[in-house]
Amino acid sequence: MQDSFDTLASSPEQVLRIIPLGGVGEIGKNMMVLEYDGQLLVIDAGLMFPESDMLGVDLIIPDIEYLAQRADRVVGIVLTHGHEDHIGALPYLLPAVDAPVYATRLTRGLAEVKLRQRGLLGQARFHTITADDVLQLGPFTVEFFHVCHSIPDTVGVAVTTPVGLVVHTSDYKFDQHPVDGRLTDYAKLQALGERGVLVLLSDSTNAEVAGFTPSEREIEATFERIFSEAPGRIFVATFASNISRVMQVLRLARRFGRRLGLVGRSMRDNVRMAASLGYLDLAPGELLSVEEIETLPDREVVVVCTGSQGEPTSALVRMSLEDHRINIRPGDTVILSAQPIPGNEELINRTIDNLFRLGADVRYSELEAVHVSGHGSREDHKLMINLVRPKYFIPIHGEYRHLVLHSRTAEAMGIPRERIFVIESGQVVEFTADGARLGEQVTEGHVLVDGLGVGDVGHVVLRDRRHLANDGFVVAIVGVDAQTGDVLAGPEILSRGFVYPGSGNGLFQAARERISETLRREAPSSALANMIKEELSEFFYKETRRRPMILPVVLEL
Amino acid sequence: MQDSFDTLASSPEQVLRIIPLGGVGEIGKNMMVLEYDGQLLVIDAGLMFPESDMLGVDLIIPDIEYLAQRADRVVGIVLTHGHEDHIGALPYLLPAVDAPVYATRLTRGLAEVKLRQRGLLGQARFHTITADDVLQLGPFTVEFFHVCHSIPDTVGVAVTTPVGLVVHTSDYKFDQHPVDGRLTDYAKLQALGERGVLVLLSDSTNAEVAGFTPSEREIEATFERIFSEAPGRIFVATFASNISRVMQVLRLARRFGRRLGLVGRSMRDNVRMAASLGYLDLAPGELLSVEEIETLPDREVVVVCTGSQGEPTSALVRMSLEDHRINIRPGDTVILSAQPIPGNEELINRTIDNLFRLGADVRYSELEAVHVSGHGSREDHKLMINLVRPKYFIPIHGEYRHLVLHSRTAEAMGIPRERIFVIESGQVVEFTADGARLGEQVTEGHVLVDGLGVGDVGHVVLRDRRHLANDGFVVAIVGVDAQTGDVLAGPEILSRGFVYPGSGNGLFQAARERISETLRREAPSSALANMIKEELSEFFYKETRRRPMILPVVLEL
Repeated sequence: MQDSFDTLASSPEQVLRIIPLGGVGEIGKNMMVLEYDGQLLVIDAGLMFPESDMLGVDLIIPDIEYLAQRADRVVGIVLTHGHEDHIGALPYLLPAVDAPVYATRLTRGLAEVKLRQRGLLGQARFHTITADDVLQLGPFTVEFFHVCHSIPDTVGVAVTTPVGLVVHTSDYKFDQHPVDGRLTDYAKLQALGERGVLVLLSDSTNAEVAGFTPSEREIEATFERIFSEAPGRIFVATFASNISRVMQVLRLARRFGRRLGLVGRSMRDNVRMAASLGYLDLAPGELLSVEEIETLPDREVVVVCTGSQGEPTSALVRMSLEDHRINIRPGDTVILSAQPIPGNEELINRTIDNLFRLGADVRYSELEAVHVSGHGSREDHKLMINLVRPKYFIPIHGEYRHLVLHSRTAEAMGIPRERIFVIESGQVVEFTADGARLGEQVTEGHVLVDGLGVGDVGHVVLRDRRHLANDGFVVAIVGVDAQTGDVLAGPEILSRGFVYPGSGNGLFQAARERISETLRREAPSSALANMIKEELSEFFYKETRRRPMILPVVLEL
Repeated sequence: MQDSFDTLASSPEQVLRIIPLGGVGEIGKNMMVLEYDGQLLVIDAGLMFPESDMLGVDLIIPDIEYLAQRADRVVGIVLTHGHEDHIGALPYLLPAVDAPVYATRLTRGLAEVKLRQRGLLGQARFHTITADDVLQLGPFTVEFFHVCHSIPDTVGVAVTTPVGLVVHTSDYKFDQHPVDGRLTDYAKLQALGERGVLVLLSDSTNAEVAGFTPSEREIEATFERIFSEAPGRIFVATFASNISRVMQVLRLARRFGRRLGLVGRSMRDNVRMAASLGYLDLAPGELLSVEEIETLPDREVVVVCTGSQGEPTSALVRMSLEDHRINIRPGDTVILSAQPIPGNEELINRTIDNLFRLGADVRYSELEAVHVSGHGSREDHKLMINLVRPKYFIPIHGEYRHLVLHSRTAEAMGIPRERIFVIESGQVVEFTADGARLGEQVTEGHVLVDGLGVGDVGHVVLRDRRHLANDGFVVAIVGVDAQTGDVLAGPEILSRGFVYPGSGNGLFQAARERISETLRREAPSSALANMIKEELSEFFYKETRRRPMILPVVLEL
């Protein structure tokens, strides 16, 4: 499934380079770069959330060093849709790469909400586009095609380059009943296919799933049943960016005589913006206040809130822990309308359990169809390949196994194995008039963000945090006379996260005695600290079978 | 769904107490205690694995304090089957409660393997039982009934007490084609029902799942296809205690002309024991060595190994990281024959990705039927209730949401809501001739084990570990003259897990200057340490938006 190593193009100007950036596991999801003749087009600028062993990390952004070094040659940033994993890294990208940003109205609105929260809105040069627009950005002719996804106004991107036509699907599915009524643009995809597509970059998220992904409409039957049966208030938890779901709930609320409340700041910001742009038919002042949510008759209330992934500080989780102004009570119905993101299952399950403990009736995707995926499945993948009929195929937007499975679908659809590239973030594929080949790797792919620090938490810090998380630490401090070696202070022992302070007293007393013994035996030297460390490591392991981080401090006085 | 508060029994001897112990989330799974007239019968002694925020914890056992205080009145420990979550706490229970242990042959064998590994085999007084036995243990007449589960020789327990008959299902399903040919004992369950059952304690694990759980046989069609298609070696990862799965693979190996290798110590120990007891038709010396696994023709090799949950030190994970004597290579097929335990998905997905990266073809439950659950689903639950027809119902073996869902099934089957008790670990239900009621809570439920420490890692240590995991720590040390307040040493700063050491230099230099300033301003006093702490907390938060644990040390010299 690797490169067909064709002859090199005679001049470097004729090389088109495809460079996926960002992503941990997920590949090419956060950012895709096209480079030709030294000029760069960026598609999406998203972030990811850390895996569970990336301790203390707030979020992950693509490594944009490659772009930053070529900032003046970036001809544009195109956003395909308004989800975090496609726009969330803009606040980090724009200060380094001051290129114009092209987005549809809703996507632009969501990106602006994000930039405003960071005080960066002034820096962005936005241009609103529609799926019908054609842009000339340096050597790239950029067209768009509408696709269905779990957010309105999503577009795929078709880029005509001197080497050939590149089609990037964005996240998509072929939905026969989209909430906003707009189908994925079959005709345009087929027309692109007829013009001849060099390479298709296609969403692989659901490569494990057989069939077509059900329509967003499918969940409405479930919601209708729940709305007609619910004896009290209804809470719907979903992603703050899932404007389609809010649209659905709003319609049902009106049909069933309920009024809508929004809980969670990002939910309120996004919905207000979507309403102000006309994506939601919501009058100002129509939304319930927290007080009204608590005091109106129960059957007149429906709330859309954040927390569908069990995020610890989200509205739903705080309500489940009775740590919110809104109190969940018997009679409430809570719908978790989202797919668990792998790694979040434990948090989600705990939230469901706690909501049940408060007496709520909880509806979630294991029990009934309260959510459908926004990503196409295997049959959607086949249809996309049939419409676009690309010469080369690069599966994107998925973890490695999804890419492999998607590549098998492509092969089964007749794309020869040697024209399929399963690549990871930072791996370049180069296209010339003569063929395609793997290029040099430009980056390992991603950068960790912790607080204000971008990239300062790396391998060493994470290794230390894992060590501390597992066994805590012990600091042993001793002050010695630099001349005589006499002990002037200590040994003092300081420890956290290792043993229960009370039960550790005898242990630490014994440890101090061991250090004192070592000090009697040894002159103060550069080796002394290491000797204390080894002695304590061995002692604590023998006594506890744990390996705390041990840090000896010898103060020479 | 709560107690029907009947009049108290006239004498305390006539109270039967049902006490679920252990479990985090999962309730009554690890240990169930029946108490009558001060005498106690223990059903199962299992362990659980920590949730992801129980940092550094190795495992979780039930809080057995209640039993330890009454050790001489424990009349017996009955084990229902040989899975970890039902026998794994024996090494912790037996030293405190020296009661006879009753188990079927295979369960006893697996428990003995476990006790031998801990050097505790001599302490146990085992009695082998069959499903036909009847034991008189103090006031309890104990009978058994065979049930199907993902391990042979599983039994449910029926206990006749002076207050009434208690039926405990163990983990079960109604399998029409069990691997060992033995059906769940319908007749005995119905006979128990006809005798009149006071209370049914029933497995709730799959309360979210509609229908009957498929038979173990169902996966054989998938395995047959994989065995007939696989171009090279086949690896099957499953739980070390899944003797049924090993049995299935062994049969297929013989049919397809492959020989079996086992990788992973617990897998080898368990399979050898099962073979020695006749549960597996395996000749000594028949198993492949590691060398043979690597050198025999690929199509003659099948390996069963541990690692189906992505456990970091397991055979499969080490192979996926190229950190094992066995090298995964293109052509190998790897089957993950297990259900992900919630919380393990990320580790499992990462392992699958890495195996694909090595060129293996990975088969897992998202793609095809390579695993079925050992627990009954909603229709199994209904059948169980119909056969046993209990007066009271207590859902066990499940997280809180499963108990609630199972209780709804019971209610729909005609058990009045007030006779259903949804309880959590340590909550007692008391039965008398007149009725049932909630008793006093005897424990919060569980104890954390870390290395040799049992219970010494509690709330404080975990809170510190979480803090350290998120932001690391900073120790600031200064030696001052106790009389004059002159600074004799330091300030020294020591930090791990906070910022990248290189990038932190300027930060720490500035922090030292702040401390020095404070020292110039303030006399050494008991408040000095706290002032340094506050100063640094504020400084670091402002500079980094992180909150490392800050530990000031003022050495008075």
